[in-house]
Amino acid sequence: MNTVKIAVDANGGDHAPDIIIDACLLALNEEQGIELTLFGNEEELKAKLAGQEYDSSRIHLIDAKEVIENTESPVLAIRRKKDSSIVKGLRSVKEGHADAFVSAGSTGAVLAGGTLIVGRIKGIERPALGSFIPTTKGVTLLMDCGANVDSKPVFLHQFAKMGSVYYSSFIGTSKPTIGLLNIGAEDGKGNQLCKDVFPLLKDDSNLNFIGNIEGRDIAEGGADVIIADGFVGNVVLKHTEGLALMLLAQIKTAVTSTWYSKIGALLIKKPLKKMLIAFDYTEYGGAPLLGLEGLVVKAHGSSDAKAFKNAILQCKTFSDEKVNDKIKQYLM
Amino acid sequence: MNTVKIAVDANGGDHAPDIIIDACLLALNEEQGIELTLFGNEEELKAKLAGQEYDSSRIHLIDAKEVIENTESPVLAIRRKKDSSIVKGLRSVKEGHADAFVSAGSTGAVLAGGTLIVGRIKGIERPALGSFIPTTKGVTLLMDCGANVDSKPVFLHQFAKMGSVYYSSFIGTSKPTIGLLNIGAEDGKGNQLCKDVFPLLKDDSNLNFIGNIEGRDIAEGGADVIIADGFVGNVVLKHTEGLALMLLAQIKTAVTSTWYSKIGALLIKKPLKKMLIAFDYTEYGGAPLLGLEGLVVKAHGSSDAKAFKNAILQCKTFSDEKVNDKIKQYLM
Repeated sequence: MNTVKIAVDANGGDHAPDIIIDACLLALNEEQGIELTLFGNEEELKAKLAGQEYDSSRIHLIDAKEVIENTESPVLAIRRKKDSSIVKGLRSVKEGHADAFVSAGSTGAVLAGGTLIVGRIKGIERPALGSFIPTTKGVTLLMDCGANVDSKPVFLHQFAKMGSVYYSSFIGTSKPTIGLLNIGAEDGKGNQLCKDVFPLLKDDSNLNFIGNIEGRDIAEGGADVIIADGFVGNVVLKHTEGLALMLLAQIKTAVTSTWYSKIGALLIKKPLKKMLIAFDYTEYGGAPLLGLEGLVVKAHGSSDAKAFKNAILQCKTFSDEKVNDKIKQYLM
Repeated sequence: MNTVKIAVDANGGDHAPDIIIDACLLALNEEQGIELTLFGNEEELKAKLAGQEYDSSRIHLIDAKEVIENTESPVLAIRRKKDSSIVKGLRSVKEGHADAFVSAGSTGAVLAGGTLIVGRIKGIERPALGSFIPTTKGVTLLMDCGANVDSKPVFLHQFAKMGSVYYSSFIGTSKPTIGLLNIGAEDGKGNQLCKDVFPLLKDDSNLNFIGNIEGRDIAEGGADVIIADGFVGNVVLKHTEGLALMLLAQIKTAVTSTWYSKIGALLIKKPLKKMLIAFDYTEYGGAPLLGLEGLVVKAHGSSDAKAFKNAILQCKTFSDEKVNDKIKQYLM
């Protein structure tokens, strides 16, 4: 069995290190083919692990007390905080001690550190964050979700290639459809970036490019992979989460507003819950930074134990499916 | 009483001219202070109006048989199709026969024609589409929703000024909060455009600028007015509609999936409906193209009679509130 070694940032996220530890124990229990190394305050982690039931041969601790905050300049923080969990965790990937690094910490620092420490795959101009979002048809991969702003056309062309490989490895579709996020359906629409990227995607016979995708087509699953500049992708991803949460909260308030609607709410609870699971971002793990010589996964800052566990398990699939080897082959 | 004269595009939209006529009759009935002129196939309109009950002194017909399609180049179509409802309707505003023009037709043609025929307010670099979107706190004005791509910083600064005037005129808030749509909350985040616009907004003491707004804050109503380049605004607006429709459809399917959940669905119907009205884009009319020497309102292509009626009534409020005079004053 291929044992995947995963470095885990125990300092990152809104609920660290408690939910990180919970997530690690859940992941170890669910998947035998992984080994975890937690980077954080070693004493604190040891104390929190004491009394818990787990296989100590599969969980290791490395002291890394420094924490990179969201408000810090990512590049400066990566250079200065050598004893941070992010720098030490990424180094362990670079040096081959770990296959992957997972963090719910500062997005900027994870992105900057991924490129500066782990390094890009040869030929890749810019790594990109790919996130799965739920749609009517299943899931769509949206990328870039925020690693790059003011992207050049060649970046987006590479996002499409990497996204195609990642989607087919995880979802199983052999030739996933690729759409360019745009403000009109017809060829030639959009801003300068879209006008420049469109022919690159269209002329690439390896891609199953289906043209422009408008905002209204995202939720319908208009394409398996939707390509965008990281500014637009990030706004769309966060708005999707915000809007879904808000609508569901409003529905909950509405259906519990009268005594008979409360009875109604009880009757619909089960099928509604089933449906809501599909719209739960915690099911989809984290967002890998595709294009690096190693795997770096960014989990949501507000991840709960289940979400972070799924981000850990994602690394096993990524490794088993040899996504990076496939990306390299694709680029040759 | 101030009677507002409104030119209506009877050729535009997915369900023209039937729902346009229905909308006009509803609007005339609901609001005494308007007079309508329909631009379309005069004979057809006459035939469809025959037998309907309405005050014929308040509805006029002008023959304009040409239709501008969504697939046409907007600028070329405006130049060539002199007998189109869009060109003739916009001309009637330019020549002072009408105070406003409402269309559910080609967005590109309405935008291009608005600028080319009606013309900009002196000092305004680029007109912008402003759309109200429902949020937890009420409504947020998002602009630009697609009139401008690759915007310059000064455009966005003007969008903020116009948006502030429009929001306070329609919603009543005297100093609406202004947010810049961005991918991080801290100052200095984002793409080059955001970095350049931020200080312009911050240094404008007439604006109630509250800083960056992230995607996840949109649905919560993070700011009364959210400013963005038209590419991003258009994607967000259309994605909001698509996602809300999709979620509601999924909920409907879920709650009618078993016999007891069907009973539950009946019990929650009333409060749920009340809540859904707030999320119904048809309540909010159309999107005005702010910054023109006259009022041009773009209604959704798939508008039903109620949505288009609201777009017509919006013109009355816009005129009564003297929004354009206020924008001009603000710019002085």
